[in-house]
Amino acid sequence: MALFSTIAVLGGSGHQGRGLAQRLTIAGERVIVGSRDPERARTAIAGWPAHARAEAAANRDAVARADLTILAVPFPGVAALLAETADQFTRDALVIDVTVPVTFVGGKMTMIAVAEGSAAQHVRAHLPSHVRVAGTFKTIPAHLLDDLERPLDCDEFVCGDSEAARVQTSALVQLLPGLRAVDVGALSRAESVEHLTALAIAINRRHKIHDARFRVVGLPSGY
Amino acid sequence: MALFSTIAVLGGSGHQGRGLAQRLTIAGERVIVGSRDPERARTAIAGWPAHARAEAAANRDAVARADLTILAVPFPGVAALLAETADQFTRDALVIDVTVPVTFVGGKMTMIAVAEGSAAQHVRAHLPSHVRVAGTFKTIPAHLLDDLERPLDCDEFVCGDSEAARVQTSALVQLLPGLRAVDVGALSRAESVEHLTALAIAINRRHKIHDARFRVVGLPSGY
Repeated sequence: MALFSTIAVLGGSGHQGRGLAQRLTIAGERVIVGSRDPERARTAIAGWPAHARAEAAANRDAVARADLTILAVPFPGVAALLAETADQFTRDALVIDVTVPVTFVGGKMTMIAVAEGSAAQHVRAHLPSHVRVAGTFKTIPAHLLDDLERPLDCDEFVCGDSEAARVQTSALVQLLPGLRAVDVGALSRAESVEHLTALAIAINRRHKIHDARFRVVGLPSGY
Repeated sequence: MALFSTIAVLGGSGHQGRGLAQRLTIAGERVIVGSRDPERARTAIAGWPAHARAEAAANRDAVARADLTILAVPFPGVAALLAETADQFTRDALVIDVTVPVTFVGGKMTMIAVAEGSAAQHVRAHLPSHVRVAGTFKTIPAHLLDDLERPLDCDEFVCGDSEAARVQTSALVQLLPGLRAVDVGALSRAESVEHLTALAIAINRRHKIHDARFRVVGLPSGY
């Protein structure tokens, strides 16, 4: 049985979201790829392997039909996207923020200062209070998710504004083989998780690799 | 052959430094434990196992005799300690900052805002320019270092203000069995590394464990 009735992946035909959208459909979830341009999204999806096929819809429609919405657009576009869609979220919908506030200026990576403290808290501030928010999939490289045959083999950090949001989000993470969800608590912990992404990017550049990611040592076996 | 002629561990009889001081002597390094109260440090060292014995000295003396100084005092004491010792550092001395700017208020952990961006940059700002600075041993739990029989089994992130400082620091890290040094670049990356420590503390509290630490996935084997 699918974990959610319908998952909207906003930005699901772009760099950040398409690997996630495909892997979730393969795991048995029903996925709608939300886009500003549903026709373009439909064309993109048509090129995906048959076992990873999803539907396409306009962002507002995708949100209105979903009990889980994943925000997989570049961080600078989040506020405008939520302004456009905020009134469409169903009661008790869960929003998962996967964005990271980093920018590349002249080839040098820096973190964008976020007034709310982190991208996840920025998302929280732009949504009505009846919507629940969690953050995860922040430290896994997008292109690794996108390479459907490759094992993921790492931990994903989950933070959220309620225990229930974190439990649901952790279950979603663990739908993808090779991922272990590590609950790190309140949504405000996203700031540290987003720094971890910055660190992974720094390690990639310094060591000329592409897939730096993390595992936590010291959790009980079977966790 | 020892990697350094003499290593001063300031705060080496305290919570943060004593495991490090002992493990470095076991690895063959000559260690001076610097203290405000060398008599007390001497008494502490006398209780260490024979194969982990170090010398004790006043902070200024320890620094003057060392080519490597490790700062293992609580973060809030760093500025005063460096004001007291700055004129004693030898030319081209290397300083390794292991401090993390976190505080516990009413049982809740929060990060201390550091004007310079990170603890490591704070240290840099309080030292003369002829002294080199690196940061590491920030994410390994102090009490794990202190339990000499336990394997460490994790990565340590190394940042520093020069390639040479990072190479020397990485070599030092790898003197301790079970540790792999991961060079993350410029000293300013310490901000992200220090967030990783905050994340480890959050994971410890949430999962009622004591030893959360990290490994990087995706580095070439043999790295």
